Amino acid sequence: MSYFDVASTAPLHPVARQALLAALDEGWADPARLYRSGRQARMLLDAARETVAEVLGARADEITFTASGTQAVQLGMLGALKGHRRRGAHLLHSAVEHSSVLHTAELHEANGGSVGVVPVDRHGRVSPDGYEPRPDTALAVLQTANHEVGTLQPVAEVAELLRESGVPLLVDAAQSAGRLPVPPGWSLLAASAHKWGGPAGVGVLAVRKGVRYASPLPADERENGRVPGFVNVPAIVAAAASLRAVRAEAAAEAGRLHGLVERIRTRVPQLVPEVEVVGDPVRRLPHLVTFSCLYVDGEVLLTALDRSGFAVSSGSSCTSSTLTPSHVLAAMGVLTEGNVRVSLPLGVAEAEVDRFLDVLPGLVAEIRAPLGLDLAPPTPSGDSLVIDALGKLCPLPVIELAKHLADVSVGGTITVLADDPAARHDIPAWCGMRGQEYLGADGTAYLIKRTT
Amino acid sequence: MSYFDVASTAPLHPVARQALLAALDEGWADPARLYRSGRQARMLLDAARETVAEVLGARADEITFTASGTQAVQLGMLGALKGHRRRGAHLLHSAVEHSSVLHTAELHEANGGSVGVVPVDRHGRVSPDGYEPRPDTALAVLQTANHEVGTLQPVAEVAELLRESGVPLLVDAAQSAGRLPVPPGWSLLAASAHKWGGPAGVGVLAVRKGVRYASPLPADERENGRVPGFVNVPAIVAAAASLRAVRAEAAAEAGRLHGLVERIRTRVPQLVPEVEVVGDPVRRLPHLVTFSCLYVDGEVLLTALDRSGFAVSSGSSCTSSTLTPSHVLAAMGVLTEGNVRVSLPLGVAEAEVDRFLDVLPGLVAEIRAPLGLDLAPPTPSGDSLVIDALGKLCPLPVIELAKHLADVSVGGTITVLADDPAARHDIPAWCGMRGQEYLGADGTAYLIKRTT
Repeated sequence: MSYFDVASTAPLHPVARQALLAALDEGWADPARLYRSGRQARMLLDAARETVAEVLGARADEITFTASGTQAVQLGMLGALKGHRRRGAHLLHSAVEHSSVLHTAELHEANGGSVGVVPVDRHGRVSPDGYEPRPDTALAVLQTANHEVGTLQPVAEVAELLRESGVPLLVDAAQSAGRLPVPPGWSLLAASAHKWGGPAGVGVLAVRKGVRYASPLPADERENGRVPGFVNVPAIVAAAASLRAVRAEAAAEAGRLHGLVERIRTRVPQLVPEVEVVGDPVRRLPHLVTFSCLYVDGEVLLTALDRSGFAVSSGSSCTSSTLTPSHVLAAMGVLTEGNVRVSLPLGVAEAEVDRFLDVLPGLVAEIRAPLGLDLAPPTPSGDSLVIDALGKLCPLPVIELAKHLADVSVGGTITVLADDPAARHDIPAWCGMRGQEYLGADGTAYLIKRTT
Repeated sequence: MSYFDVASTAPLHPVARQALLAALDEGWADPARLYRSGRQARMLLDAARETVAEVLGARADEITFTASGTQAVQLGMLGALKGHRRRGAHLLHSAVEHSSVLHTAELHEANGGSVGVVPVDRHGRVSPDGYEPRPDTALAVLQTANHEVGTLQPVAEVAELLRESGVPLLVDAAQSAGRLPVPPGWSLLAASAHKWGGPAGVGVLAVRKGVRYASPLPADERENGRVPGFVNVPAIVAAAASLRAVRAEAAAEAGRLHGLVERIRTRVPQLVPEVEVVGDPVRRLPHLVTFSCLYVDGEVLLTALDRSGFAVSSGSSCTSSTLTPSHVLAAMGVLTEGNVRVSLPLGVAEAEVDRFLDVLPGLVAEIRAPLGLDLAPPTPSGDSLVIDALGKLCPLPVIELAKHLADVSVGGTITVLADDPAARHDIPAWCGMRGQEYLGADGTAYLIKRTT
């Protein structure tokens, strides 16, 4: 099995495993207790905090350990918003943040706050001036790198812009911590250990000295009053050990992984018809690439890849339990169907990547075969056509459109009737890719002009 | 080192360690993913949920895994209060709940809710009628057993009282889960794995089907929408394995531990002047006992015990970083100084307990020496004896009791361990006939005081 989904979770690093076993023996007691085993747990915890602080560029007393990256984001956002409530209740975040950010923003809004969403370009990147704060902006949130498409964000520039007005910036470093240096300028920092080869159950919330923070949770004296509950010393020790180990390995591996991803970015569109590789081609994570295959159900493709020995992920609407298209791909204005995210582990063999490129085209072709699509340039045969795709879910409306494009002549129009919300996004995106003219939509009717 | 502080945290159970190692290999992937390793993690998670549900007397779909017992309490309280807000905003809890309950109540109050505190008697036990709800009572909270003094609470009776008015009851089972069966009648249940020999990082929040619950946190689809963040499958698997193992061991050990604690309860006042043993003598946890030594700084005594090889805890003001006296002892109206809590691990050697009883008097005397107090020698209130009649059928337990009555002096106590249901009737009846004082029973332990 080639595991190409480290952006979801990385396997436990051998160093983390070793540290975990040692700390289960030496650091299991309550670090708040005065007896020997308690003091020993406290020392291990302190040392782990020092390590994490050093790698992330923080002071030890700025670091608190949470139960997950999601908890770090939630507490960081709610605590900073509460701490800065005298400033106002306006929150800024990019359109492509992790769902933990979006959901926390929804709660903030439900509680009477206001939220501004900073748009991204077609590569999923914000423009720093989108973060121009309002007088009542109490917090801004930006990821270091996008979790679905790997695009790096201009964190340092945004931090610089916010610094003048004193608006704190929470940086979500979940996808890059341990792999890339943390950009300067954060006020709060969130990360997740299981993404860097640490165990599950450990997140990091760093709060810069002087940044106002008011816990949204019931009082608890542990972890600087920020994270309630018994401190998970063994897992924290393991998380710190793997962070230190991975940082060194990642620096050595970055170039090689960057090249392997570049190979996927270049070869996939040459091997598979009707594919769009998304995300910034240059300012990106070294190990992550995402592409979308037209006319393909992402879940079907993932299952086929799994049977062929590849574990990959998808932000496609078709694999989400909520049936809404990926908000990241939607915000970028790119295709959301047949989406595959490949994220390579440290030390991945080149041969595994090549085998992926060998296997993929056949699998996509197999999935498309029953659709009877003629992906060669079509022959014109009519002036206008209405395609009824009502009640059909993504990607069927686009498949129908592609199948029948050749039924109208160049200059002719096709109206697609589709009530799946994903169509609102996918039909224009398909037109852009295929060089057809998208004329607009009226309710569930989408009008397309054939131009080639 | 004799570790007598399992009420803080128990060492990792060997079964938990084994399960953790296996699950780090087999269950590390994201259980929400569709590929093989993800499905495997999901299966392990489902199996663990079934196990925990079965042991705690719940349905699997009622169980959610949190990051700690504290988080389970916080989410359970806030979620139930939010879910029942149309009923009102009045919260009832006992005066001796864990600080996680008290702090959550403070937050509820700060947010405009009202809180009623149910008093306890001198043994730390609530009277069920203290839980008579108001029309606007939205939630009641009660522990199964007190964490500082081990007193068992009348949970079933309180649940019965609340059932008529439809007020949900959150039961904090942190100190008893895995050691004693969960009493019936809970609407929400909170527990903590590291207290039963599971790893840190796993709590349990169970919510009965039909009980209204509205998450106080940002939305997240994991753990039934109740607990955000990446699910810690390996730790959950280990927690479930140890819960199953410990339940069986605890049932076998209960009588023996009950006897050892009885020995401490009886001997300490005979060996150390000016000592008060607190907590219910009969309706108590089998493994936990607390006593307070007048004129002694608890922290100094703990440090002295640590140097002598005993890890114990204290609810005393002197060891708390907040410098406020234990709210539990204060609510009971008992001495709060020089407080020592002994909580015995499963499998503890009798010799360790005897060594503790050997060492303690000298340490206390040393600490008191500089005070120049003239303390009366302890009044021999009688010695004590534990008769193990487990597995023996009626009338054997009563015969054993009659045979050994003369082995304690007048004022001394005898604990008869008997699991024949007939003992519940015969032992009190025998006491009545013979003019001895029957102090009560806790499960299979019957306490008798020799009066003639």
